[in-house]
Amino acid sequence: MPIAVDAMGGDHAPQSAVEGAVRAAAEDGAAILLVGDRTRVEAELARLGARGRIEIVHAEEVVGMDEPAITPIRKKRRSSLRLCAELVKDGRAQAMVSAGNTGAAMVAAKMVIGTVAGVDRPALAAVVPNPRGRTVLLDVGANIGSKPNHLREFAVMGHFYAQEVLGTPQPRIGILSIGEEEGKGTELTREVFRALKTTGLHFVGNVEGGDVFNGEVDVVVCDGFVGNAVLKSAESLAEMLLTMLREEVAASARGKLGYTLAKPVFDRFRRRVDYSEYGAGPLLGLNGGCFIAHGRSNARAMQSAIRRAVEFSNTRLDRKIRDKIAELHSQEERLLAGGRQGAETG
Amino acid sequence: MPIAVDAMGGDHAPQSAVEGAVRAAAEDGAAILLVGDRTRVEAELARLGARGRIEIVHAEEVVGMDEPAITPIRKKRRSSLRLCAELVKDGRAQAMVSAGNTGAAMVAAKMVIGTVAGVDRPALAAVVPNPRGRTVLLDVGANIGSKPNHLREFAVMGHFYAQEVLGTPQPRIGILSIGEEEGKGTELTREVFRALKTTGLHFVGNVEGGDVFNGEVDVVVCDGFVGNAVLKSAESLAEMLLTMLREEVAASARGKLGYTLAKPVFDRFRRRVDYSEYGAGPLLGLNGGCFIAHGRSNARAMQSAIRRAVEFSNTRLDRKIRDKIAELHSQEERLLAGGRQGAETG
Repeated sequence: MPIAVDAMGGDHAPQSAVEGAVRAAAEDGAAILLVGDRTRVEAELARLGARGRIEIVHAEEVVGMDEPAITPIRKKRRSSLRLCAELVKDGRAQAMVSAGNTGAAMVAAKMVIGTVAGVDRPALAAVVPNPRGRTVLLDVGANIGSKPNHLREFAVMGHFYAQEVLGTPQPRIGILSIGEEEGKGTELTREVFRALKTTGLHFVGNVEGGDVFNGEVDVVVCDGFVGNAVLKSAESLAEMLLTMLREEVAASARGKLGYTLAKPVFDRFRRRVDYSEYGAGPLLGLNGGCFIAHGRSNARAMQSAIRRAVEFSNTRLDRKIRDKIAELHSQEERLLAGGRQGAETG
Repeated sequence: MPIAVDAMGGDHAPQSAVEGAVRAAAEDGAAILLVGDRTRVEAELARLGARGRIEIVHAEEVVGMDEPAITPIRKKRRSSLRLCAELVKDGRAQAMVSAGNTGAAMVAAKMVIGTVAGVDRPALAAVVPNPRGRTVLLDVGANIGSKPNHLREFAVMGHFYAQEVLGTPQPRIGILSIGEEEGKGTELTREVFRALKTTGLHFVGNVEGGDVFNGEVDVVVCDGFVGNAVLKSAESLAEMLLTMLREEVAASARGKLGYTLAKPVFDRFRRRVDYSEYGAGPLLGLNGGCFIAHGRSNARAMQSAIRRAVEFSNTRLDRKIRDKIAELHSQEERLLAGGRQGAETG
């Protein structure tokens, strides 16, 4: 089953999305539906010499980057974003990929594709590099003002994403907090700490901001407000460091010569840390896949977002998440029933 | 007036603190009081050939890195940390510097040195590099669960720190939020947004995590929970990137040769981004200076923390903060009185 790609989303639409899709089809053998304005998408395909190679699903409307998140639900029901979600809901696509309006993509995916039974709120995850592999950070912006049960759901989703999609055998899960001892942090982190101890997941306790990138844990769980701040500041820092390194190199003849010699090294380094390898985040907890890419994604970033969506579709994440959450709920009910019985007989 | 340096605080105490103090005295002409166990401090000074060059204030006790924050107040009243704060309070030192237990240093400074009139909570600030200069991020961990009036105080403190200590003529101030429009974010950020519009400071609105490092604003204001997560994740990311760059360079002969040629460039780059240039954060809002350095600070990091403390002491930050906060309070009272009068006569 194909991946639905929003051809009209992002700062460089439709060019980046179409080119990314063409590359993913040619190089990775991905099956793709390009969703957007047929004339414009066909023109892009023609420019790339790929006319007729990828199926197009025509969409009359486009959700602008600055329109309200509710737009694809209330106003633009024929938008490419909404149609991508419809294709996943109707079982015509396994997953959708969009570099368009993030808020609108999240709302369309949640309301059209729907959440896994038992999941209250889908969470946007980011997969970031660490020295030994990759870390899943969630939520990075879909939810603010999360309750303890939401963070417990995020832990379940992050666990299965790390295990099934990234191939981490027994993902270590931490709560992002300030101070590592159980009593440290906010009321929210303390309640989540208690809730995660009985999930059967490999919960390691509170972690701090430094653990997002050091590989000490595989999944970091937090409210979307703090996760968003951490992710965006990290992206901006990485960019600043690369800029400063380039400036220093360009400022001297020795630097330039050294750089020329070491260029393959720098290129490999850039690939390891480049956001375009990591920039597409999965919206987890849905009855299907949804990957949200950076607005500024180039063709390479779109290609890797499509790859992530294919990897995701080869797993049955929705079922695993649903079963685990059902198990946690029935465990709670038994505890509550036990508590009531204890109170009655005690 | 001298700077009181906690000789016993930090992972490499007393070695790093004493060596940093010796360098600051010799290279920067800083006047210093080394506070700690006289025998151990003298031994370090002797080892460095600097015996008798720096005055020692003997302290019998040491607050351990894992002891409760209240320790210097309740239990170890003769600790080096507590004595540093006493020296500032008594006007025998202008400012204190410690790489010891951060929580304990903050509590000792707040309770012994005391806050500026009108300031409810001191804030720990971090000064981070951006491509064009430096950004002040606060609070990074002194306060969790901040109220809107606290964030307004942080904005005032950050403004004067940027202006008086870093030399930024008209600091641009942003609130760390998710989404940049006025209505975006949490209840806290929305209330702070309203409160900052009438302060007369150069308030630019909501900013996102990316703006902490891109130089678009000079001061970023947030609650300590999110500020701590952003700061610690950024430090860890910068370290990881440098490690990965070294790994890539070491993996090939070309890389090594290129690196050797470009070494001065790399050294300059490291200096620009090295935490030891930035790692000491001022605790703002006190009747005196307090700089809190990383626990793992080396001698160079301690020397630069002492430099920051000297720069700070050459300004009259406490007075400026006090006057501005008094002005904001009287402005509020006038508004409230106007409102009451309006209600009575209207």
